[in-house]
Amino acid sequence: MSAPATPLRVGVVLFEGFELLDVFGPLEMLGERARFTMVAENPGAVPSIQGPRSVVDETLGNCGEFDVILVPGGFGTRREAGNQAFLEALRGLSERSRYVTSVCTGSALLAKAGILDGRKATTNKRAFKWVASQGPRVDWVAQARWVQDGKFFTSSGVTAGMDMALGLVAHLFGREAGVAAAQAAEYEWHEDRAWDPFAKLNGLA
Amino acid sequence: MSAPATPLRVGVVLFEGFELLDVFGPLEMLGERARFTMVAENPGAVPSIQGPRSVVDETLGNCGEFDVILVPGGFGTRREAGNQAFLEALRGLSERSRYVTSVCTGSALLAKAGILDGRKATTNKRAFKWVASQGPRVDWVAQARWVQDGKFFTSSGVTAGMDMALGLVAHLFGREAGVAAAQAAEYEWHEDRAWDPFAKLNGLA
Repeated sequence: MSAPATPLRVGVVLFEGFELLDVFGPLEMLGERARFTMVAENPGAVPSIQGPRSVVDETLGNCGEFDVILVPGGFGTRREAGNQAFLEALRGLSERSRYVTSVCTGSALLAKAGILDGRKATTNKRAFKWVASQGPRVDWVAQARWVQDGKFFTSSGVTAGMDMALGLVAHLFGREAGVAAAQAAEYEWHEDRAWDPFAKLNGLA
Repeated sequence: MSAPATPLRVGVVLFEGFELLDVFGPLEMLGERARFTMVAENPGAVPSIQGPRSVVDETLGNCGEFDVILVPGGFGTRREAGNQAFLEALRGLSERSRYVTSVCTGSALLAKAGILDGRKATTNKRAFKWVASQGPRVDWVAQARWVQDGKFFTSSGVTAGMDMALGLVAHLFGREAGVAAAQAAEYEWHEDRAWDPFAKLNGLA
């Protein structure tokens, strides 16, 4: 496929209690090729589960079009999984985006919104059962660093988001672009998406 | 040594053009044991080099005491290396903190402020020469994932900050605490601080 226009327009979906590295790991890896818009239900700033707050650029109800959206995990997903307005907005945003990505328990929100029905997907290995319960029609993959199914890239826990993001860079711009982005961050990329010692560690393989 | 009181008070020094993952990688690894305060010269919010902005909690001129400070890198370091007021405040903050940590070119700021004189330290391997020029009396280590010298923990580029932070967790709370923090983030910790393929990749080893 031909490389897409850059910068990629990346919309990052924030909610109170998001996991810091679920967001900023992938953003680092996409960094040079993307322009990021932080999106949330309300304007202002959104506190992560660790405390630090990120400034909101646009609201879910009034945001632009994106090439890629990123949905992080974190304990805030437990609340948002019951927030119908949030899930409805997420569904609309997903339908309008060329690629939909998630890290950790972010895939629980995509699943609960019905976005992943009939798709292969993965998630954090410690929260696997809860996440799977949010999407009974999703084909959950228990052992995977990340999974691609069409426009959907879902990753395992926290740092797996960096490997997934590099996989997206490679998908869009070629393998060498992924390798270069990893080297720029002095990162040892787990390029093999089947690499997942954490599935076994958590009794899933 | 006995484990310190928790939560650790961690002060994160922000400046315009900081590298996202230099900050949020270490914060993720320290996460469960720390309370973070984002510190900058001015109140408001600070834009990273990638764009997303972080909210400032306290200013450099009027911040509390910290157990640990974290100084990230990013292209903004080129400007701050010439900002005498910033360097002076950083020096004072360093003297009052039990541990001083840096990621990537953050060590250039510590070096320029004279904080690392006579100490072993490391930095990003692509920017090594520029960083070393900021501190001619520092004992720069060209091949290292991270370096500890007394209260100073300096790391190599970007993702090396996560390994360094896990090293600090292990130093403070024992090795098993570092392993547990890495596993919680599904991270393959480079526990060997001498592991550094990026030194060779950049002609430094």
